[in-house]
Amino acid sequence: MMALKQKTVIGVIGSAEPSAVGLEIAAEVGRLLAEAGAVLVTGGLGGVMAAASKGCAEAGGLVLGILPGDNPDAANPHVDIVIPTGMGHGRNVLVAQTAQALIAVEGGLGTLSEVAIGLKTGRAVFLLESRLQVEGAILVGTAQQAVTAALEALKEGFDG
Amino acid sequence: MMALKQKTVIGVIGSAEPSAVGLEIAAEVGRLLAEAGAVLVTGGLGGVMAAASKGCAEAGGLVLGILPGDNPDAANPHVDIVIPTGMGHGRNVLVAQTAQALIAVEGGLGTLSEVAIGLKTGRAVFLLESRLQVEGAILVGTAQQAVTAALEALKEGFDG
Amino acid sequence: MMALKQKTVIGVIGSAEPSAVGLEIAAEVGRLLAEAGAVLVTGGLGGVMAAASKGCAEAGGLVLGILPGDNPDAANPHVDIVIPTGMGHGRNVLVAQTAQALIAVEGGLGTLSEVAIGLKTGRAVFLLESRLQVEGAILVGTAQQAVTAALEALKEGFDG
Amino acid sequence: MMALKQKTVIGVIGSAEPSAVGLEIAAEVGRLLAEAGAVLVTGGLGGVMAAASKGCAEAGGLVLGILPGDNPDAANPHVDIVIPTGMGHGRNVLVAQTAQALIAVEGGLGTLSEVAIGLKTGRAVFLLESRLQVEGAILVGTAQQAVTAALEALKEGFDG
Repeated sequence: MMALKQKTVIGVIGSAEPSAVGLEIAAEVGRLLAEAGAVLVTGGLGGVMAAASKGCAEAGGLVLGILPGDNPDAANPHVDIVIPTGMGHGRNVLVAQTAQALIAVEGGLGTLSEVAIGLKTGRAVFLLESRLQVEGAILVGTAQQAVTAALEALKEGFDG
Repeated sequence: MMALKQKTVIGVIGSAEPSAVGLEIAAEVGRLLAEAGAVLVTGGLGGVMAAASKGCAEAGGLVLGILPGDNPDAANPHVDIVIPTGMGHGRNVLVAQTAQALIAVEGGLGTLSEVAIGLKTGRAVFLLESRLQVEGAILVGTAQQAVTAALEALKEGFDG
Repeated sequence: MMALKQKTVIGVIGSAEPSAVGLEIAAEVGRLLAEAGAVLVTGGLGGVMAAASKGCAEAGGLVLGILPGDNPDAANPHVDIVIPTGMGHGRNVLVAQTAQALIAVEGGLGTLSEVAIGLKTGRAVFLLESRLQVEGAILVGTAQQAVTAALEALKEGFDG
Repeated sequence: MMALKQKTVIGVIGSAEPSAVGLEIAAEVGRLLAEAGAVLVTGGLGGVMAAASKGCAEAGGLVLGILPGDNPDAANPHVDIVIPTGMGHGRNVLVAQTAQALIAVEGGLGTLSEVAIGLKTGRAVFLLESRLQVEGAILVGTAQQAVTAALEALKEGFDG
């Protein structure tokens, strides 16, 4: 069981070069997470990561960015707390495990690695606008559905 | 240069089994960091880590805990945001690099590895009640001196 | 370009609990890699990893095992050189990047994370008996085809 | 207890820019390890790492290089098996844990982090020409003493 004080942390993962639709959806996911009082964690860079961070930050939410490199300045400007891992793709493992549930927007191979680790470690994973086909990941149609489902999944008892 | 929005994050590192004096000092460091508006990052477990976290949390500060294991429940009860790395001693590297400056209270070999990585990556490192002898780390006498010096060091231009 | 002295290292990844067919194929892949003079790298544990290691070792090949835990004794008995990372799923990144090409035999989510990182970092990835659907990974029918294709891919110029 | 098949792996760590004396000693350590049938692991780059690798390789030994970056071409030319971690300073943890005992030649903060992790995880650590002061690390005077002591330490029962 999660200790009471720990904040709910939801990960948004996805392409650094998404479509315009992907950007819009990511921003909405970020906004809805902030409104629900959740902390957002992303890989800290551009595209879906930046859009979700912007949406979250503008709605008053707290944004974590877990970077692959060791330079904090590489983070997008909406990140509150930067974790400059210097661990390359090892950072994907950290994003997946810091999140209590994951929402992917579009996304390619890096996203796929995070989806796989997320599911492997018992986290609920939701896919928006995704071409990824991974058994156990749940396709959803809207940002609202993704956020509602992610928060619902935590209530049902994820415990790491 | 650090982007304006990024919060100041200071690391407190040290033994999981400190002396009573060490516990008291760690708690005071945590409290002073909160009062200065800094985020606290620790390794998330007991001893110095828990004491600093408690001090910070009780003064209204935000506390990050970067755990060696993958179970978020292993975090001490004062952690707001848990990063369950599952990376064992690799987590020490993450604590050192998430902090923009480091304050060690007592501490043994694990702490020493964090001091070394901190200094190696250009971070200012301050030692309280420490037997560690590391060129570049700065011995200070009180919690207040450590916090003041750590925040001062950031102004002088740490940029990752 | 790869320096001349560096040995060819091929990764075999897959389930810790494969089918009998999977075990047989993994062993044959290991044997063929040894006969081709390649070093085998796996995640060092059981199932496909142990079968490939056994096949390789019995044919005189060198076997690396990159463990998720920090206890070298957890390695299967066919590993020559153990890397006890203690990095949990971070070890999957290390397996994928130590291999110059990857051959997956069956496999689930852990394997999927390695396939994703392998492709993401420009490595050729071949799938045997796999239900995984990943754009860029190449389905092959036999152990011999997988090994031939993996070695062929390196000649065409993988350079990390 | 170590399984019988696993090779003895000894780590040589130290500065990328050692003195001429340091280079000579590192080369001798590498040679003596090869003559004793041990595998050498280093951080794969220049200075002490390259000198030890050269000494080992020229005496017919096997050389592992665990790189901080993800480009295998960054390895010194004496490395047989490259592990391009892409994990930055996280690689120091991997060098320390892949070695069953560690020999440091000169060395600064990076070396210190490896010494600390090595001791923390129960490995014997020997220092040659070192200014490092770490409780538990053993100062020795010659390459021969270091290699003999390292191999002796393993017999006495390191088990990870």
